Amino acid sequence: MKCRRCGSFEGEVALKRHNATFCRNCFVVFFRRQVKRAISEFRMFTPKEKILVCVSGGKDSLVLWDVLLDLGFDADGMYIDLGIGDYSRESREKVLAFARLRKREPIIVDLSAEGMTIPEVTARLRKKACSLCGMIKRHHFNSAARKGGYDVVATGHNLDDEASRLLGNIIQWNVKYFPGQKPVLEETSSGMVRKVKPLVRVTEYETACYALIRGIDYMIYECPYSKGATSLAYKEALNMLEEEMPGTKARFLFGFLDGEFFREDEKEESEGRSCLVCGEPSFQEVCSYCRLKEEVARRSAAGRKGA
Amino acid sequence: MKCRRCGSFEGEVALKRHNATFCRNCFVVFFRRQVKRAISEFRMFTPKEKILVCVSGGKDSLVLWDVLLDLGFDADGMYIDLGIGDYSRESREKVLAFARLRKREPIIVDLSAEGMTIPEVTARLRKKACSLCGMIKRHHFNSAARKGGYDVVATGHNLDDEASRLLGNIIQWNVKYFPGQKPVLEETSSGMVRKVKPLVRVTEYETACYALIRGIDYMIYECPYSKGATSLAYKEALNMLEEEMPGTKARFLFGFLDGEFFREDEKEESEGRSCLVCGEPSFQEVCSYCRLKEEVARRSAAGRKGA
Repeated sequence: MKCRRCGSFEGEVALKRHNATFCRNCFVVFFRRQVKRAISEFRMFTPKEKILVCVSGGKDSLVLWDVLLDLGFDADGMYIDLGIGDYSRESREKVLAFARLRKREPIIVDLSAEGMTIPEVTARLRKKACSLCGMIKRHHFNSAARKGGYDVVATGHNLDDEASRLLGNIIQWNVKYFPGQKPVLEETSSGMVRKVKPLVRVTEYETACYALIRGIDYMIYECPYSKGATSLAYKEALNMLEEEMPGTKARFLFGFLDGEFFREDEKEESEGRSCLVCGEPSFQEVCSYCRLKEEVARRSAAGRKGA
Repeated sequence: MKCRRCGSFEGEVALKRHNATFCRNCFVVFFRRQVKRAISEFRMFTPKEKILVCVSGGKDSLVLWDVLLDLGFDADGMYIDLGIGDYSRESREKVLAFARLRKREPIIVDLSAEGMTIPEVTARLRKKACSLCGMIKRHHFNSAARKGGYDVVATGHNLDDEASRLLGNIIQWNVKYFPGQKPVLEETSSGMVRKVKPLVRVTEYETACYALIRGIDYMIYECPYSKGATSLAYKEALNMLEEEMPGTKARFLFGFLDGEFFREDEKEESEGRSCLVCGEPSFQEVCSYCRLKEEVARRSAAGRKGA
């Protein structure tokens, strides 16, 4: 196939939604431009700002870190070791190997140090692993960004992630989650650092192609706790519609973001305050992370007594 | 399986979304109650009003007519012969046979009488059959309802139709079509008769079960012009989500109808006027149906001259 950009006959990556095929080199250029466009279009950050990239060892977050470095941004990666057996061990190795290649020192946070690994937490509390894990990660990334003087926290959410999350929130009419769909969540006076999603204009497939072409070695296995997640059903539904009508995911998500449909539901984030224990932003005297930590500790002690 | 309603062990119709199984008799009772509930919940019409049912010969419209008669409403059926070969011939026979059984005289409109069958119209104009057909049917049903003194026009749109139409309108952000999603479109001062969808609380599957149990003989073939309609992709996507999370379709549609999310976009229907040719409501001097008719006639004449 002919490459749309350079005209060579080495076109390999076919993107129906852009009605285009690219050769490997031109696809890399195209992909980086899409990320750059998202960063400037949504005013995510400037070249003068310090970026903390949340890296899990999966393709999206490593590709994000890779692209930001190549675009010349000041981006550090941070990995949280969730303590999920082989899954965490292998993910951590992927992150360390990538960082070595790019000559960067990643920030590593080890949940086992405070007895808060996902297996430990879920064993004590009858709550869903994914929502606990999300809360724990938000806490540590925000805390590390503040302590390290980072202006912004970047995550690897791609177009598929964002469009399927929007579909789920609409199908269930979770109106309160609509404001969280924005690719930029501004910092708050209570201490939430700005959060951005620079991969919002590229699909999961495009990100996988980028990783392959750039030779990025990533963790291919999914987290064992994510099995049967309903978010997968929304992704499948959108993939089916995308197959039938290329461009559907992007039109759906950006149509929502451009529109004014939901403005009335976007309430300004309430002021909040600082957690008395850790100093992170909180809606109560003690933040949800510190309360979780205290509850896990209390139940562990009770378990030991009972034994 | 045990029937939830009567406790007999002849439960045959399993409805996951209601977490219930019914025997044949109790399912009929359940189904009629759902229709009755939609009629009263959305204030569709009262027992004193005259209802014109749009019947195509398919399951939804014949089931609707059947249920309305059994609920004691004053409901007449009207069939438009679209002139689509065997499809129209067989559909017409199904309508006539059903009407005979129920001892009702259907109103029949024959598009061939005015040279406006779907094959004739689409041969003259390069427009999509489905949108032309929809416009032609709306014109005739409204016109017949006004001339016959009917208070309301009822169509057989079910929960699947309405939820998938909503999904399509949201995915494409066709905000202008949002107000049309309501199960009741009130009459307008310009002469649009009230339109209602009494099957909005029952699914396609439930309607098919009702037809089967009641022995309603309907046209099983789809219209040959409907092949590859994108609306099918939205239905499939919703069926996949319903399978994963029973009750999704209903929560999605009724969450939208109950919500206030889109109020700002619901503009009052502009006043409009009457078509100078046929007297039906129109936004221009001559309504879209009469303009279509004139254009078909003009092109037919040109075709004859050219030959």
